[in-house]
Amino acid sequence: MNINDFLSSPPLSQHRPEPDDLIVLSSRVRLARNLRQLPFPGFAKKNDRVRVLETIRPAVESLPTMVDAFSATMDSLTNLDKQILVERHLISREHAAKSVGSGFVLNKEENLCVMINEEDHLRMQSLRPGLQIKEAWKAINQMDSTLEKKLDYAFSPELGYLTACPTNLGTGIRVSAMLHLPALVLSEQINQIVQAVNKLGLAVRGLYGEGTEALGNIFQVSNQMTLGELETDIVERLSKVVAQLIEHEQNARATLLEKKSKTVYNHIGRAYGILANAHSMSSKESMNLLSLMRLGFDLSLFQGADRILVDELFITTQPAHLQKRFTEKLTTEERDFLRADMMRDRLKDVSRPMTDKNESRRSPLDKPAE
Amino acid sequence: MNINDFLSSPPLSQHRPEPDDLIVLSSRVRLARNLRQLPFPGFAKKNDRVRVLETIRPAVESLPTMVDAFSATMDSLTNLDKQILVERHLISREHAAKSVGSGFVLNKEENLCVMINEEDHLRMQSLRPGLQIKEAWKAINQMDSTLEKKLDYAFSPELGYLTACPTNLGTGIRVSAMLHLPALVLSEQINQIVQAVNKLGLAVRGLYGEGTEALGNIFQVSNQMTLGELETDIVERLSKVVAQLIEHEQNARATLLEKKSKTVYNHIGRAYGILANAHSMSSKESMNLLSLMRLGFDLSLFQGADRILVDELFITTQPAHLQKRFTEKLTTEERDFLRADMMRDRLKDVSRPMTDKNESRRSPLDKPAE
Repeated sequence: MNINDFLSSPPLSQHRPEPDDLIVLSSRVRLARNLRQLPFPGFAKKNDRVRVLETIRPAVESLPTMVDAFSATMDSLTNLDKQILVERHLISREHAAKSVGSGFVLNKEENLCVMINEEDHLRMQSLRPGLQIKEAWKAINQMDSTLEKKLDYAFSPELGYLTACPTNLGTGIRVSAMLHLPALVLSEQINQIVQAVNKLGLAVRGLYGEGTEALGNIFQVSNQMTLGELETDIVERLSKVVAQLIEHEQNARATLLEKKSKTVYNHIGRAYGILANAHSMSSKESMNLLSLMRLGFDLSLFQGADRILVDELFITTQPAHLQKRFTEKLTTEERDFLRADMMRDRLKDVSRPMTDKNESRRSPLDKPAE
Repeated sequence: MNINDFLSSPPLSQHRPEPDDLIVLSSRVRLARNLRQLPFPGFAKKNDRVRVLETIRPAVESLPTMVDAFSATMDSLTNLDKQILVERHLISREHAAKSVGSGFVLNKEENLCVMINEEDHLRMQSLRPGLQIKEAWKAINQMDSTLEKKLDYAFSPELGYLTACPTNLGTGIRVSAMLHLPALVLSEQINQIVQAVNKLGLAVRGLYGEGTEALGNIFQVSNQMTLGELETDIVERLSKVVAQLIEHEQNARATLLEKKSKTVYNHIGRAYGILANAHSMSSKESMNLLSLMRLGFDLSLFQGADRILVDELFITTQPAHLQKRFTEKLTTEERDFLRADMMRDRLKDVSRPMTDKNESRRSPLDKPAE
């Protein structure tokens, strides 16, 4: 695929009509692998990195799942293109900073992607929309098994797969799910929940992984430990915690609707009103308002409109995606104008949230004088 | 007129289609008078206050302009009713605190009103929508001349009309105009303008007079001095300053539209979006957002809608007006819900502001890649 075609088009629709997918945006499993007797990328000289890249890249490209893949060396991509890949969660921020000797391969379904010479020689990940942790594991496990026949992995019978950072040692697995938890945030339960999840040995992070903010009320939950536990046990454990988080979020939504429906409708109504009418909007504000609109879709307040719209705007209104549409370099201010223009345009046919029926019972308007 | 009918209905429409009225909401002239040889209200015993009330009230009611007037003693009004009169700018906050021995008379056109035993025995004022300072002066001057034949005013050939506070001595006149100056606020010129106006011996105050905040970008400009100048000169001077303020505001609007149209549209669009979709809103927020919508009407951004709507909402969404519609005492939170319900309901047929035509020329959307 032509890189410009790929980067200029919106990401493939990620929506499935499963109820759990209202809360779980995506599931992901990644494996870290390295080649035997070659220095880890952080210690490798350029020649070694290029050698690793030239060994791994064709092996990946030759996989049956990689027919018509999008493949590139990091030095062939512009900073803007790399940033778009970050905004689509296809590469890490760290990998976006890489150049000669690093590479990236993505299958045409956009659900299997490989970073070469990021922190490890090989980081392959399987992405799935919604709650599909096990499916993601199955896909990446198969890819890994096939690749293992072609590549000579650094493996110790005692320690397992060797990795640049000891936190990945053993299985090299990171299982994660991206959760949309607006009700836990609105009801101020989120900190408590995060602490509880941490105690179970899982990490809770922001939208772009380690050290990033939970913009748009989106949280990434993943395993911390990679050693001493079977991959399938890690997948199982994370799935159970995610199921609990879904339940907590659902309960928080039900409680808010029962006890504070006006507050919920107020947040959603204002978010919609601002998104549909502003002429300047920062990326951060847009994420947080889109999150509230997404909650409105989950509560069926936006009738006749398709919620895919909101999920797509989450991605396409981010800075690099906006910049990609224009030849001239945009300033932050210009991007804020364009972002608002795009929002108004895309939301112009979405009607106001339908909240009046639900609220009228509780409204003091029911008991007017006379 | 029945007081409940009067207080429960919206104020008479104040809109005239004059261009200056986009900026000048209303004009007002009040005169302070006292009866000879009776102590000022602040020093008077109850009996004296009642005597003054019983002398002045029938004299006012018998005026030809006061046929079918609404007339009441302050002890006969509830606190809520008094508060409604304050919100309609018909009585002062101070007068609302008065009880036995104080009174209030308003003609049926709602443009001549009299406070009895406020700070002075008699405070009569003439109100006019838009820029009509001279008309207001003419009306109150006529009323004063007629009353002077019936009442024995405290007058000194040297000092003029005697008043409880020396700041009103002489003519007892206060000429004022209520101005809507959103562009001077948005362009941060307002403080400078206020200082310049002060130097000309005029006062600039907030929405409810002395010591109140300029909610909704509304400012009251009035004379400070009442002594040593003819009433007509004071009226003339204030009219000139108001004409200059109108010009400054118009220039500020033109400059904002020319240099920062997106910022202006952003403010107006967000204000509309929030007003039309919120489910909870404080009085203060609603005034400030309505002010921006009013600016949008002035700039013809709201097509097919009537700007009277906004002027009416300015009044009817204030706390006492809201409470008046319900039998049960509302909490602040309930009022905030009701205010938002009323806004959504009244604005549901007002379309989004039409800004796209104007802005597209400057928008970077005009130069997309390819």
